[in-house]
Amino acid sequence: MPNFTANTKDMQFVLQEVLKISQTDIPGYEDMEPDFTEAVLDAAGKVSAEVLAPLNEVGDKEGCVLENGMVRTPKGFDKAFAAMKDGGWTALDCDPEYGGQGMPYVLNCAVGEMFVSANMAFNMYQGLTHGAYSAIHTHGTDAQKSTYLPKMVTCDWTGTMNLTEPHCGTDLGLMRTKAEPQDDGSYLITGTKIFISAGDHDLSDNVIHLVLAKAPGGGEGTKGVSLFIVPKFLVNDDGSLGERNAVSVGKLEEKMGIHGNATCVMNYDSAKGWLLGDLHKGMRAMFTMMNEARLGVGLQGYAVAEAAYQEAVAYAKDRLQGRAVTGAEAPDKAADPIIVHPDVRRMLMDQKSFVEGARAFTFWGAHLIDRVHKAGDKDADGLISLMTPVIKGFLTDKGFETAVQAQQVFGGHGYTEDWPMSQHVRDARIAMIYEGANGIQALDLVGRKLAQDGGKHVMAFFEMVKAECKSHDGDERMKPFTDALKVASKQLQAAGMFFMQSGMKNPNAALSGSYDFMHLMGHVCLGLMWTRMAKAANVALDNGATDTAFYEGKIATGRYYMARQLPACAMHLARIETGAETVMALAEDQF
Amino acid sequence: MPNFTANTKDMQFVLQEVLKISQTDIPGYEDMEPDFTEAVLDAAGKVSAEVLAPLNEVGDKEGCVLENGMVRTPKGFDKAFAAMKDGGWTALDCDPEYGGQGMPYVLNCAVGEMFVSANMAFNMYQGLTHGAYSAIHTHGTDAQKSTYLPKMVTCDWTGTMNLTEPHCGTDLGLMRTKAEPQDDGSYLITGTKIFISAGDHDLSDNVIHLVLAKAPGGGEGTKGVSLFIVPKFLVNDDGSLGERNAVSVGKLEEKMGIHGNATCVMNYDSAKGWLLGDLHKGMRAMFTMMNEARLGVGLQGYAVAEAAYQEAVAYAKDRLQGRAVTGAEAPDKAADPIIVHPDVRRMLMDQKSFVEGARAFTFWGAHLIDRVHKAGDKDADGLISLMTPVIKGFLTDKGFETAVQAQQVFGGHGYTEDWPMSQHVRDARIAMIYEGANGIQALDLVGRKLAQDGGKHVMAFFEMVKAECKSHDGDERMKPFTDALKVASKQLQAAGMFFMQSGMKNPNAALSGSYDFMHLMGHVCLGLMWTRMAKAANVALDNGATDTAFYEGKIATGRYYMARQLPACAMHLARIETGAETVMALAEDQF
Repeated sequence: MPNFTANTKDMQFVLQEVLKISQTDIPGYEDMEPDFTEAVLDAAGKVSAEVLAPLNEVGDKEGCVLENGMVRTPKGFDKAFAAMKDGGWTALDCDPEYGGQGMPYVLNCAVGEMFVSANMAFNMYQGLTHGAYSAIHTHGTDAQKSTYLPKMVTCDWTGTMNLTEPHCGTDLGLMRTKAEPQDDGSYLITGTKIFISAGDHDLSDNVIHLVLAKAPGGGEGTKGVSLFIVPKFLVNDDGSLGERNAVSVGKLEEKMGIHGNATCVMNYDSAKGWLLGDLHKGMRAMFTMMNEARLGVGLQGYAVAEAAYQEAVAYAKDRLQGRAVTGAEAPDKAADPIIVHPDVRRMLMDQKSFVEGARAFTFWGAHLIDRVHKAGDKDADGLISLMTPVIKGFLTDKGFETAVQAQQVFGGHGYTEDWPMSQHVRDARIAMIYEGANGIQALDLVGRKLAQDGGKHVMAFFEMVKAECKSHDGDERMKPFTDALKVASKQLQAAGMFFMQSGMKNPNAALSGSYDFMHLMGHVCLGLMWTRMAKAANVALDNGATDTAFYEGKIATGRYYMARQLPACAMHLARIETGAETVMALAEDQF
Repeated sequence: MPNFTANTKDMQFVLQEVLKISQTDIPGYEDMEPDFTEAVLDAAGKVSAEVLAPLNEVGDKEGCVLENGMVRTPKGFDKAFAAMKDGGWTALDCDPEYGGQGMPYVLNCAVGEMFVSANMAFNMYQGLTHGAYSAIHTHGTDAQKSTYLPKMVTCDWTGTMNLTEPHCGTDLGLMRTKAEPQDDGSYLITGTKIFISAGDHDLSDNVIHLVLAKAPGGGEGTKGVSLFIVPKFLVNDDGSLGERNAVSVGKLEEKMGIHGNATCVMNYDSAKGWLLGDLHKGMRAMFTMMNEARLGVGLQGYAVAEAAYQEAVAYAKDRLQGRAVTGAEAPDKAADPIIVHPDVRRMLMDQKSFVEGARAFTFWGAHLIDRVHKAGDKDADGLISLMTPVIKGFLTDKGFETAVQAQQVFGGHGYTEDWPMSQHVRDARIAMIYEGANGIQALDLVGRKLAQDGGKHVMAFFEMVKAECKSHDGDERMKPFTDALKVASKQLQAAGMFFMQSGMKNPNAALSGSYDFMHLMGHVCLGLMWTRMAKAANVALDNGATDTAFYEGKIATGRYYMARQLPACAMHLARIETGAETVMALAEDQF
């Protein structure tokens, strides 16, 4: 049995004491009183631990199977999916007009984190549906919305996103899938799409594919790309299911992990599709969903790390091996539990301080998205655009690293498939790749986001960090946080300055440092989060909170992060400042 | 088909131009003329690419199977094993008295690197045998040697090492396996050992298990432990195989990787065994093999990384996606190969500069072991003792990181099992764990090796680095190397100083920084290797070498390492200097 219990206490702390959502002037947030969010989180935690987590190993071991053109999901997934639907968990932040519950996205993220920790592969079936739902909700006609959304909100119908083709992933301009316009206003879609998560399965009555394809007259490259709705079963005028569309599963991918999710090659053979949004504006339509989708992947990164961390803590308290160097701590036992050893502590602290920082960072990002969508806040829009590649790239890199480290705590046992650690590592690995590989996130950050709107958003971020530090002036307890954050923030600014100065002369000089910049910025963001969390913990203690172990532990964990992780910033800056010279020195045949 | 070609050119460079083995005064080295080593390396390279590499995927997909108590290895392993035996590859550095070829260990390592790159799981069958051979060779009686060694040199009989039990790995003092002395001088061994690599299989006629067990009268903990020879089939006086011993395979482990190697639970049920070496000195007997065994695992770390790197280079040259930011480089094609992009270059340069540095470091270590064994050099013994945990811990951590990065170059394709990248990552993972998990290596380094013989060996290492830098004084071409190395070496010394000062007061302060110290020292060692390689390359160019692409590429790759990797040293030092406070701050229930 997995050792998973949703960390609802920490989520409540971030939502209510750091982000203070119930006191925030975003429409809908006023209902987010602590009692209410606690009840939602507790109920979701119960589902995560009791329904989803027990199926995680089943999904990994059994995987999905393609039989006679149909995908069969692992045993028990159908019942669990029904439980998710019955509990309304698929509809949490969806539009009430289509049957949703209209809750903030930030709360949906908190719930989603637990679901991913408990069973990442399973949660993708509804996660992808949510993405497709958002695309239709934003770009669909009224008729499209009323046809598809009510069924997608409940996950009676699920959704997919079809971008990648065998020869193109990052560079979608090379796309070959074609859309031929028909007299009735529909299109015939022909082509092959690969890596389609939840592309087909037995959990829903219909699958609504959103497919990027080239319609005539759009010009070269990505300019000619449009987005189409291509249902597995056509939908009759009365909403009932009609004939089977000409879309089929060519193959199920054998993957390193997330075996419980069906990753499909999808063949479209003159399949009937309908334009979603404007003709030849498919890329733009996809990109409006990008922040949310990428934040969701960043969340996967740390959510799997949380699950792995919980296992590591349980093992470290249980496994007896060696004695504490400062004297036996469990003299009545044959040996001390390994949690007494400083190097095991180091690993657990790395994990804990990352996961908690990442949670705050992701919830903050989700809160910014709420601010954009529910309050039309333009500054928040710029800020979350800037943060999105960092949330995706940094949190998935570190999330994987964390899972690997949690596995290390188990020694040889962690390498066997008898324990859940191999699966966590293998599952976590994909988050660094899909939804834009992390190198692409770094390119997006340095090549586009830094300079967006004249660099306004990154300047606003620097000001925010500065103001945060200034607000704690004179508070001795906050000095370990603000001192480290100031240094790191200056290093980040120096890196940005280097890009501005050298990138003018040689764009490779900036791009050679993009990955390090993404990590440097990730550390500054988590440093900012830890500063805010430490402050919130101090406030709680000052106000006489009785759970001192939690708040003091929070501050100590933050101090670990500042002391032990922020020194990475100087390394990243040093690498960045070496520019492109050594990176680009070799001719191709010297590799 | 795997894209694997043994990098014999680089191996020759390290052996002949950096280590200059044929000019070194170690007995046996005088025969190691360049033509000779080149011929050996080329022949081994052919076997690696043609016999072993094609079976790597087979081994992973098919794995080993336990049928009626017998382990069946993957299809083709038997023929390949026969080819290895026929080619004499199992006997390269073994004692000629027992049928070996008596070549230097350093040459055996070079050959071993290729075998591991081509097929890590397969190579373990002979690798473990070599370890058992060495133990018997060092500690066996003449009778034991003549009984077992000739068959083990040829791998007609293979060997294993049995240390771990379900409840103890690191802390062998908790061992429960018992040895009861019999009147005939033999012992009856009873107990369960786990994680026994190559514990049973169908590749050899007999398996010679070396088993740690507690014989009466040895006292508590590891003091009571002795080492025993326990053959699967007893050996008659005439050398023929006799009755089956009471040792059986309880289970084959399902693992994350190295599926081609049989990882067994071994049950000893009053199995007949014979003492190897002195009674109650089993730990010491094991430890005499430790340097070699751990160097072998460090070698696995970078050898798998080399295989992964070669795949990544091939893919990066082939995959077309996007355009170089400085203008199209393949305008005749739909897109440029991704190797034009700076961030892809960064990944490949990280990989290349690590693998080549690691190769030089490992060969240097092997050369030190030759110096100990063949020339009785005490200083070399101290130095390799100091270096062993660094070779094992640093090279396997970085080797895994490198394999993960090589996988990243493939984007989504790297996550599927259609490409070899998932296997390389999954295989590389174990090297961080077995033969002493890397945290234990760091503990060994900081807790034992630094202070060994009054700190003499680490001081000698600092002097060696200093002398190396000094020897290049005035050579402008060497400045990028010596400048960076001096800084890193000072940081390493500062870390050592911190341990001395703070560790006195609180041993946790040193142990909280042990892992960072191991990495810091690893970087200094690779920096030293790159300095030596750069010098050798300059010498070759000065002497009119025609292969300027190789030597200039070598220098450029070294400059990358110095510029882009050595900045990690400051980070490790900063972490170390924070001591134990934040590491040990939490109570157990605060995790």
